[in-house]
Amino acid sequence: MNGKNKTNYLSYKWFNDLICKSNVAERSQIRGCLIFKPYGLDIWNQIKNKLNYLLIKTGHENYYFPLLIPLTSLKKEYNHIQGFSQECAIVTHRRLKVTNKAILIDRHSKLKHELIIRPTSEAIIWNSFKKWINSYRDLPILLNQWSNIIRWEMRPRLLLRNSEFILQEGHTVHSSKQEALSHSIKMLNLYKYFIENIISIPVIKGKKTPTEQFAGAKTTYCLESVLLDGKALQMATAHFLGQNFAQSFDVKYLNQKGIYERPWGTSWGISTRLIGALVFTHSDEYGLILPPQIAPIQIVIISIITKREDNKIMDKLVNKIGVFLKTNHLRFVYDNRKQYTPGWKFNEYDLKGVPVRITIGKKELQQGLIEIFRRDKRKKTHIKIINLHKTLINLLNNIQTQMFLKALGLKNQYTQTIDDYNQLKHKLKSKGGLIYSHWDGSQESEKKIKEDTSASIICIPSTTIKSKTSHLGHCIYSHKLSKQRVIFAKCY
Amino acid sequence: MNGKNKTNYLSYKWFNDLICKSNVAERSQIRGCLIFKPYGLDIWNQIKNKLNYLLIKTGHENYYFPLLIPLTSLKKEYNHIQGFSQECAIVTHRRLKVTNKAILIDRHSKLKHELIIRPTSEAIIWNSFKKWINSYRDLPILLNQWSNIIRWEMRPRLLLRNSEFILQEGHTVHSSKQEALSHSIKMLNLYKYFIENIISIPVIKGKKTPTEQFAGAKTTYCLESVLLDGKALQMATAHFLGQNFAQSFDVKYLNQKGIYERPWGTSWGISTRLIGALVFTHSDEYGLILPPQIAPIQIVIISIITKREDNKIMDKLVNKIGVFLKTNHLRFVYDNRKQYTPGWKFNEYDLKGVPVRITIGKKELQQGLIEIFRRDKRKKTHIKIINLHKTLINLLNNIQTQMFLKALGLKNQYTQTIDDYNQLKHKLKSKGGLIYSHWDGSQESEKKIKEDTSASIICIPSTTIKSKTSHLGHCIYSHKLSKQRVIFAKCY
Repeated sequence: MNGKNKTNYLSYKWFNDLICKSNVAERSQIRGCLIFKPYGLDIWNQIKNKLNYLLIKTGHENYYFPLLIPLTSLKKEYNHIQGFSQECAIVTHRRLKVTNKAILIDRHSKLKHELIIRPTSEAIIWNSFKKWINSYRDLPILLNQWSNIIRWEMRPRLLLRNSEFILQEGHTVHSSKQEALSHSIKMLNLYKYFIENIISIPVIKGKKTPTEQFAGAKTTYCLESVLLDGKALQMATAHFLGQNFAQSFDVKYLNQKGIYERPWGTSWGISTRLIGALVFTHSDEYGLILPPQIAPIQIVIISIITKREDNKIMDKLVNKIGVFLKTNHLRFVYDNRKQYTPGWKFNEYDLKGVPVRITIGKKELQQGLIEIFRRDKRKKTHIKIINLHKTLINLLNNIQTQMFLKALGLKNQYTQTIDDYNQLKHKLKSKGGLIYSHWDGSQESEKKIKEDTSASIICIPSTTIKSKTSHLGHCIYSHKLSKQRVIFAKCY
Repeated sequence: MNGKNKTNYLSYKWFNDLICKSNVAERSQIRGCLIFKPYGLDIWNQIKNKLNYLLIKTGHENYYFPLLIPLTSLKKEYNHIQGFSQECAIVTHRRLKVTNKAILIDRHSKLKHELIIRPTSEAIIWNSFKKWINSYRDLPILLNQWSNIIRWEMRPRLLLRNSEFILQEGHTVHSSKQEALSHSIKMLNLYKYFIENIISIPVIKGKKTPTEQFAGAKTTYCLESVLLDGKALQMATAHFLGQNFAQSFDVKYLNQKGIYERPWGTSWGISTRLIGALVFTHSDEYGLILPPQIAPIQIVIISIITKREDNKIMDKLVNKIGVFLKTNHLRFVYDNRKQYTPGWKFNEYDLKGVPVRITIGKKELQQGLIEIFRRDKRKKTHIKIINLHKTLINLLNNIQTQMFLKALGLKNQYTQTIDDYNQLKHKLKSKGGLIYSHWDGSQESEKKIKEDTSASIICIPSTTIKSKTSHLGHCIYSHKLSKQRVIFAKCY
């Protein structure tokens, strides 16, 4: 990106090291499962709390359903179980046999009905919907859950594709098709708002091809983005389930005319993968860069005063600044640890991606100035202490916007329109990125292209790029008629 | 308690119904696992956030470790695995085989190393401690985790003894025995403070007998309480692990003299069981009664105005009150739904246990008065609106204290000293409660008494009751010498 020559810079390996070095997460002894470290959990809690607020505000209520789903329940929706069948953690026994010689599974404790650790919770939640829904008065149900789930990954990728991850999963039931459909799109738009404005990552809105859609859905809407290494990442999905689960779980309600009808469902989710996304979009060679909205620490104050007698003046000043920061609900830290040098601290907060650093030294104190450093552009300025109030709030907003614009630049740089199959193959082998090409809509071509290039159709975008207005065209692979361009990309 | 003659009143069945009726939780299709409903989760989040604040303040940091623990890791601490061997959920396979005819476990997907869903996380966390600890500079480590765990219960009890529950588990490592021991006791005292002051339940501090202690611990300290039905409930535990896990997981550190030493460990926890405890301690025939400190809604405002033209005056007044409530960080709801009568609402908030209800009618408005109803004592008073500020804050504090005192009365009422074995057996069959009796310290007597009475030694209390100062005595069963009284009780 900026011509750095370090090996692996901006690669998955670099991303991986950065995640560990910055105390976000690390690998565990179990393949595909990670350990969230304190800073990673702090970032997640910022995301969680802000999104949760929006979900509650839009009428959703939080529930917590069991971790384990009986296989008999999961079986009910055939497409659903087929889709998840290759990545299930299956609980089959419930006791160990401990003897002097060995510790083994107690064969007598075999379960009559096997249990699956939830890969998603439709199958257990629709079982409750059946009990809860009788009349149109019970609808809509708008429910949300924060849960840990397991999807056994063959090729796990730290934070981007883990076997265990934390999921926000919404599940709703509606009396009409139109209402359910609107709700799935409403939630997709809410995610778009959230990811673009809070995490500062621009996303492409679209829907999945039938091959790529959620197992059990009628339509899967999605938000996609591109990472620093040119690979695509699915950021959020919202599924219109039609009456599939209502049918499979035999859910019906008495409508206002006294006739039984099947209700309509949606489900939608985001996960801790978003932490991976923000690290792999916004970071640079110095470390993370966190958008102010979700940075656990938005501002760090570091003193570079050396004389002990100046410390008191410093503490007094910081106290004063602190009052203002607190009143404005800004998250800050005053790092006055004596065992570390200012330089060490600068590196530390650079690595952690703290958006703004305030440095105060003797010279500054005497002149009524403080030094402000913005992490995203790595620029220092001196401002008058009396102007701090206005400057800080404007600066944080500006960083948030500039980070979005920089990521938008990245996305645009990685976006291309290609009409020649060899060129597509070449591009996917070299730079990667998001490639808009025509597709005939057949699973056959989709499969063949994937075999040739390892790229998937990450989505059928809602709107194609403005400059390429022609909707009709010919499939890049089969040359058959194509209704619109879709996006090909290698993805995590 | 108050002479009500309803069948089952204050029984486990009554408690069970109340949990469901008040929208706290309900049973799921999986035996021993429950569904947390929105109100239950709201209560839990109050508990979680307040306790988390105290844990962070005392220097602990939050981590999240994987859900699954390799059996090979769990095996390392022999006593630990032996203790949990009868209640493990064991994952043995990772794929299903979906054919036209049936959906079965794919036998080829059998795991080489079986995984256990965490019943507690020592075995996975100590594996990381081994990697993280090298020198005395790495110590102490003070970490905390909020996690869902599975302990397969043979006789599950809704919210009191579930197979899946949410756990707060602290894990620490120290360089000296004294420091680890002090830390486990410090955390026990923190729990005592929290449970008595925030949840308003008095607890007895003590330690477990070797039979009852945590599998893998040297000493298990505990807090115990008694429920409305006279059964005891373990509220919190703190374990001094000695060097057991350090030994089993081969954790060592270089001390200041450059010599390798084994560190010392602690672990301690509370769980969603606390919600069960507070419901089964504070409720009455009208529903829950929540201590103000953890009530999701502390104050509900209900208008009993009938004329539409008065509504505006009402809204204006509520707005004014609202500003004051918000400024004081009080959690309140103004219920102005038109489709429900005031009477219906009164019952609803009684059931939910909202500590304070403010009712405003026309008469009150004209006289500048409002009616205040306190849920715990079910008493109404009229106060002048201008005195609302002071009154409300005092009232909430008073309710918190009075609830504690009432629970203390319950505990005292259920506490007895008995020296005759037949009397002990009789008492445990009839009223139950906490019975202070002498015990010779042998596992044999402990086991025999349990067989005869189904009661356990719930703890060896730190301090015996003042009025019974004589420490020495004779075991109620064997008549052998006893060093002090212990507490016998039937428990959940």
